[in-house]
Amino acid sequence: MNKRKLLLVSNSTLHGSGYLDHCQNHICSFFTRDVKRVLFVPYALHDRDAYAKTAREKFRTLGYELDSIHEASDPVTAVRNAEAIFIGGGNTFRLLKCLYDNDLVTEIRRRVLEDGVPYMGSSAGTNVATISINTTNDMPIVFPPSFSAIGLVPFNINPHYLDHDPSSRHMGETREQRITQFHEEAETPRVLGLREGSLLLVEGNNVKLLGTTKARLFTRNQPSVEYEPGSDISFLLTHTHSDSSLTQQ
Amino acid sequence: MNKRKLLLVSNSTLHGSGYLDHCQNHICSFFTRDVKRVLFVPYALHDRDAYAKTAREKFRTLGYELDSIHEASDPVTAVRNAEAIFIGGGNTFRLLKCLYDNDLVTEIRRRVLEDGVPYMGSSAGTNVATISINTTNDMPIVFPPSFSAIGLVPFNINPHYLDHDPSSRHMGETREQRITQFHEEAETPRVLGLREGSLLLVEGNNVKLLGTTKARLFTRNQPSVEYEPGSDISFLLTHTHSDSSLTQQ
Ligand SMILES: [Ca+2]
Ligand SMILES: [Ca+2]
Repeated sequence: MNKRKLLLVSNSTLHGSGYLDHCQNHICSFFTRDVKRVLFVPYALHDRDAYAKTAREKFRTLGYELDSIHEASDPVTAVRNAEAIFIGGGNTFRLLKCLYDNDLVTEIRRRVLEDGVPYMGSSAGTNVATISINTTNDMPIVFPPSFSAIGLVPFNINPHYLDHDPSSRHMGETREQRITQFHEEAETPRVLGLREGSLLLVEGNNVKLLGTTKARLFTRNQPSVEYEPGSDISFLLTHTHSDSSLTQQ
Repeated sequence: MNKRKLLLVSNSTLHGSGYLDHCQNHICSFFTRDVKRVLFVPYALHDRDAYAKTAREKFRTLGYELDSIHEASDPVTAVRNAEAIFIGGGNTFRLLKCLYDNDLVTEIRRRVLEDGVPYMGSSAGTNVATISINTTNDMPIVFPPSFSAIGLVPFNINPHYLDHDPSSRHMGETREQRITQFHEEAETPRVLGLREGSLLLVEGNNVKLLGTTKARLFTRNQPSVEYEPGSDISFLLTHTHSDSSLTQQ
């Protein structure tokens, strides 16, 4: 029996609303009233004090106390004692490097997969919950020791997934082209493009798409597929690589 | 006397025109008639044969033969014998990893800085000519051994620099926010935001902005500054870090 319990949010702020407003009902259903205190990881932003203040104020309105890991004397102990974990967005490279620098990657994985500690991630916090940060949109401002991430699910996510704007004159790669480039590499896992407004609820071996926008699934050597909000996409947990890539190896 | 001779292009294709059309006059002035053959590096794209074909056809119309390094029996020898080098765009992570995998980073640096071999880069090929790839826009689809790049100039470039669209509802970071996040890190160098349509000509210790669009210079702890096409920005070669970051250390 897999105890995994994850809420993976594409974006913390939806255009025209406040911090985490668009997913606040899902947050309360996810943590339930069993959780009193949430351990917050602000590493993705430079100003950790300000970030913790923003998150703390929002979580208090939802009925949860929030402890920020950057105020703990020992981050590993803080994870060992956490009732619930929330990793916020910002820069994914900075976040992952800091998780490695503080020996937190394997500790968080253990707490979530073995002890069933609920894990919520937003944007960069969603990227680091997957196999790797290979499909982040962020700028590589620092060099982490690896792109391998916490690995709570056997696929990758592209948060803030963006459809191509046909009126654009910009010639940089579209998001779809970027993910296609990732899949040109051998043995690359599926990538779920989570548009702003959508989120993923993972409970044990079940995955459900929540929110207000569709998600687009990219599989190596296969056409991409759209999923409506409410879709059961639990099959994402059963294959780590696309069939076609496996048969090619 | 510094022999450095660089043409660093923001983008290989401008909206509405063909491959390298928008900068073809600059390419001919840069390589001059002294150069007969250009060594092309197609590593940033997956399909190297197709990429070399596209580049070869374009360079022939300009009067240059093109040898692609992926067809050479020994890439290091190809660089040692090159009259001129052109590194094309695509994915910057893939490109830099491949340059390291083939032991080309120091060899290209030596040929350009010591032997005065002309170096042209476009997009990812411009990123790898700078200090590091920390300010690429690309997706980190593979893990290079380092983000340090060839280091032909003591600053970084952000190609395809994009102004914020105030009508956008997308909540991912703007380009300016991404570069600001880079400058939140200690001792980070200047970043020149090269908009599509602009290019940089470096000759010895002189740097000139060419093309049709302004460039925006970001310096740590200082306001950003715009430069018009035709500007002399040779001062970029004289300081490796912002003054303010140096006094902070
Ligand atoms: Ca981000
Ligand atoms: Ca690119």
